[in-house]
Amino acid sequence: MTFPVPGLPARVRIHEVGARDGLQNEKTAVPTAVKAEFIHRLAAAGLTTVEATSFVHPKWVPQLADAEQLFPELGDLPGVHLPVLVPNERGLDRALALGATRIAVFGSATETFASRNLNRTVDESLAMFEPVVARAKEGGAHVRGYLSMCFGDPWEGPVPVHQVVRVAKALLDLGCDELSLGDTIGVATPGHVQTLLSELNEEGVPTDRIGVHFHDTYGQALSNTLAALQHGVTTVDASAGGLGGCPYAKSATGNLATEDLVWMLAGLGIETGVDLAALTATSVWMAEQLGRPSPSRTVRALSHKE
Amino acid sequence: MTFPVPGLPARVRIHEVGARDGLQNEKTAVPTAVKAEFIHRLAAAGLTTVEATSFVHPKWVPQLADAEQLFPELGDLPGVHLPVLVPNERGLDRALALGATRIAVFGSATETFASRNLNRTVDESLAMFEPVVARAKEGGAHVRGYLSMCFGDPWEGPVPVHQVVRVAKALLDLGCDELSLGDTIGVATPGHVQTLLSELNEEGVPTDRIGVHFHDTYGQALSNTLAALQHGVTTVDASAGGLGGCPYAKSATGNLATEDLVWMLAGLGIETGVDLAALTATSVWMAEQLGRPSPSRTVRALSHKE
Repeated sequence: MTFPVPGLPARVRIHEVGARDGLQNEKTAVPTAVKAEFIHRLAAAGLTTVEATSFVHPKWVPQLADAEQLFPELGDLPGVHLPVLVPNERGLDRALALGATRIAVFGSATETFASRNLNRTVDESLAMFEPVVARAKEGGAHVRGYLSMCFGDPWEGPVPVHQVVRVAKALLDLGCDELSLGDTIGVATPGHVQTLLSELNEEGVPTDRIGVHFHDTYGQALSNTLAALQHGVTTVDASAGGLGGCPYAKSATGNLATEDLVWMLAGLGIETGVDLAALTATSVWMAEQLGRPSPSRTVRALSHKE
Repeated sequence: MTFPVPGLPARVRIHEVGARDGLQNEKTAVPTAVKAEFIHRLAAAGLTTVEATSFVHPKWVPQLADAEQLFPELGDLPGVHLPVLVPNERGLDRALALGATRIAVFGSATETFASRNLNRTVDESLAMFEPVVARAKEGGAHVRGYLSMCFGDPWEGPVPVHQVVRVAKALLDLGCDELSLGDTIGVATPGHVQTLLSELNEEGVPTDRIGVHFHDTYGQALSNTLAALQHGVTTVDASAGGLGGCPYAKSATGNLATEDLVWMLAGLGIETGVDLAALTATSVWMAEQLGRPSPSRTVRALSHKE
């Protein structure tokens, strides 16, 4: 039984980030074969966009140092996109050489995070992305621009909306096909989400080029998602099983769990193509590989045995 | 910085259920003095309705067997309501004898839960409540009617909306001043919430007599709350620290954490009168008494030390 809400989209595309954003933040080293099986199972569960890995230098993200081995193992999954993150031209070269057709760059809306994460100012990072995006587009690839710290920043506090809009527009001007607006520290609330989306629209950015990427640090991810859907957003990032932020770790910054998202969307009658039982089974299996329970409430509720 | 959403209420009354609904579901026995301090701290944090205990037979809820000792210890807290749950006339007598001015009865929208929880049919339970509500009203008490299993039932599955409406109206006809619509197993989604509220309105039940009581079993509590606020609901039940459903227990049925709710409402610029820091400190302290971390994401995020 479904209960649609008038005005919400009929279909949402889930951009599954568990294998990249999730695993890059997990302490446990995951063998390449397990990652490949994870991605294959996510695709089999109906996810049509499964971000696969990152071609960042292994020194920075050792968890994904096997990108060169993993990506060819995935093979061709009909109807499934397998974007990969690239930090710079060197990363792009590695990704394109392996046949990647969708790439993503990772920018910051704040100077402090740009400095700490990219070792550059915001404008310097945009300059670094310029040839990456241009060459990716020349090669026929689809480009996603992640924009982190769109709502709050751990060092700067609340992030002014106009500041986010400026960087978002700059990423689109570089040639990005879509944006993913990240609430990296999970502080956003529904009105903030709708305000940012409205400002972007007013500055000429159409909603259909915007995805949202919420973290559940303060338990707000799903209500923020609902607010984004009410604004017309149809691309939502989520991480199978809530991978990527152990809620018991000190710097808990859990991703929205794909299962919790699918539960809500299914109840609303919004199509995703995802088989919740198959997805949950995948996350239970992955949790066993990682040796800890999934933080997804839906996974826990559906997998507990009386 | 707040980001209001047009059409949402300016103020929400939080009906804090941690000391009753929370503690009655905790395995750890809590000393009466700790309960009293908990309630005093919740009131000091700005909560104006703090459900205090239950005058149910100790055989059924041993965790709250000290209601007779606890209630007088609370004293008079200016501006703070301290409702108590009463199951029947015997419980009402005990509550009124101690000076309770707000009572609550606990009904079920489904036959199976009525049978299992109340050992009666739905209509038999309404008949049992009739003299309880009548005598409470005669004594000048305010009466809340809890209605559980309003969306799904573990044995019956989805609960038809018209069935919930019938029992809700019956509780109001008995004289209940307000209803609390419970998603006892946490399966509701936003459209279901709005559909039930609309049906109640159509059958003559005004929104200002309706509170909502969501569980976070599938992570849906806060998005359902947002949907209820968008319908005009201004009374929301929540449990400090998410008490009342250990997410690691097999039958996880966690209440919406008051802190997660306050975070969202504060961001939306909706007044609650609650001091989030004081509330979080209270939940951290209570978690220490219970010997386990709070399941509230906001409590964890605000209390972690780098």
